[in-house]
Amino acid sequence: MSFLVVGSVAYDGIETPFGSEDKILGGSATYISITAGFFGLKPRLVGIVGRDFAVTDVQLLKSHNVDLEGLQVDNSGDTFFWRGKYHYDLNNRDTLETSLNVFEHFNPEIPDSYKDSEFVCLGNIAPALQNRVLDQVTRPKLVVCDTMNFWIEGARADLMETLKRVDVLIINDSEARELSSEPNLVRAAEKIQKMGPEILIIKKGEHGALLFTGSGIFSAPAYPLVDIFDPTGAGDTFMGGFVGWLARTGDLRDENMRRAVIFGSVMASFCVEAFGSKRLISLENGDIEKRYTEFMELSTIPEIINL
Amino acid sequence: MSFLVVGSVAYDGIETPFGSEDKILGGSATYISITAGFFGLKPRLVGIVGRDFAVTDVQLLKSHNVDLEGLQVDNSGDTFFWRGKYHYDLNNRDTLETSLNVFEHFNPEIPDSYKDSEFVCLGNIAPALQNRVLDQVTRPKLVVCDTMNFWIEGARADLMETLKRVDVLIINDSEARELSSEPNLVRAAEKIQKMGPEILIIKKGEHGALLFTGSGIFSAPAYPLVDIFDPTGAGDTFMGGFVGWLARTGDLRDENMRRAVIFGSVMASFCVEAFGSKRLISLENGDIEKRYTEFMELSTIPEIINL
Repeated sequence: MSFLVVGSVAYDGIETPFGSEDKILGGSATYISITAGFFGLKPRLVGIVGRDFAVTDVQLLKSHNVDLEGLQVDNSGDTFFWRGKYHYDLNNRDTLETSLNVFEHFNPEIPDSYKDSEFVCLGNIAPALQNRVLDQVTRPKLVVCDTMNFWIEGARADLMETLKRVDVLIINDSEARELSSEPNLVRAAEKIQKMGPEILIIKKGEHGALLFTGSGIFSAPAYPLVDIFDPTGAGDTFMGGFVGWLARTGDLRDENMRRAVIFGSVMASFCVEAFGSKRLISLENGDIEKRYTEFMELSTIPEIINL
Repeated sequence: MSFLVVGSVAYDGIETPFGSEDKILGGSATYISITAGFFGLKPRLVGIVGRDFAVTDVQLLKSHNVDLEGLQVDNSGDTFFWRGKYHYDLNNRDTLETSLNVFEHFNPEIPDSYKDSEFVCLGNIAPALQNRVLDQVTRPKLVVCDTMNFWIEGARADLMETLKRVDVLIINDSEARELSSEPNLVRAAEKIQKMGPEILIIKKGEHGALLFTGSGIFSAPAYPLVDIFDPTGAGDTFMGGFVGWLARTGDLRDENMRRAVIFGSVMASFCVEAFGSKRLISLENGDIEKRYTEFMELSTIPEIINL
């Protein structure tokens, strides 16, 4: 089914205890669309890049089946650049540099050929821009949205408007607590679902993820990784896998939502195994299904035996 | 099968944002044995109480099938008393008072009739005392041990001796990281298993628990509780449910270890629903099996569908 993603396309500079990269392809729309490409989709990407955007990165996206008709190229400046440093536990990072560059004046324009998109991924950008995207699409089957503390604190009114219009919100546990002013995640989820999204996913990093639907809760485990090289893009990759699976199957029932959460977790677990998108783009046939099976083995609870 | 528990029997004073109790029955051996009683066992309790120990609490333990032959009564002082205060998020607590009283000179003496115990639960007491228990039992089928940061920091040499002699260690995530000096839990588990215990359980509070056996990892979800009234005793209750199920079935294979972890989680999830052991002692037929089924529903990953 048709799949639209709007978000950032960026270059990242990354330092971790295991190495560093000066300038590597990143951005939410990049990770989401590359990931969704693995689910047999042709992701329609809406974003903006500058004069320094490399033709090899255009080729990379195209080779992963990403439709670039909606990618704006602004020759007046450079591509959005972010540089950050992760500490030893990889849970915390310091932002060392943020240069918005051409992204500062990004105004998402949805090409006519994209307006009928059935699955819409709103990457982590200003809620006002997310709303502008929703104004332009006609009748999406599912709208999935990401956000972050920066917008919860600084653009709350806009975010509340967005939330009324989305079907699925994907955030992490600290964002859920902040958005709802509620420390207990079950109560937090109830409050957030009343803000608009019928379905909520709370990502808990090394502790997995929780899926809240109208009918109950699903607790997804995290893949027990020994070597985590670079967490950059893991959240976006989760979104790409989650929505990618739903768009591939077109099945929005609860049981399939569970599968989608696991596919999101599978893709995110690959993402962190190497810098940037390096591991993702090296995935081969069968890798994804194999890890899905490992998630099943990891969390299967045997039936009670009768005594 | 025969089940021995050695640990503290105490009175607790508890303050939470939801209420308080001045003096309520507590202690690791209390929680472990009451919980194990629900698994058709007659737990053999070794501990010490003082002159203030109430006959009603003796009756309470007896009514839960606890064998008190090994309970020492020391009329020279009062029972171990702990008073603590939990904060709003219930993850942190301040100790307001610790009066060891008769527990200060506790020397676990295992009655002859207990020495053949097949399942041995070493509650969270000084590792030197845990070792003294193991010196007295003949051929246990399984030795399960709890410990805490206090002993990891203050009695490391003794603890290392204990660890060589136990089959299963149950600790929380911060204790696992401290014991192994390793932030990644998978690596931490490998290191700890090399210290002695073939099986390791890492409890992660609201994030569930991880079981590490010789053949793999099991990730158990946490029960998504809306109302947590009092976390006191949850860890001990987990141990009582875990070992209780194993002792009831006598089956130590991996699949049954998974069931045991879920029974531990089930019992702990009940424990925190009321002050002290109040919710536990009110459990009725079917409550435990019903919640076990809820754990299964919570974490079942559907098979991938073919497209």
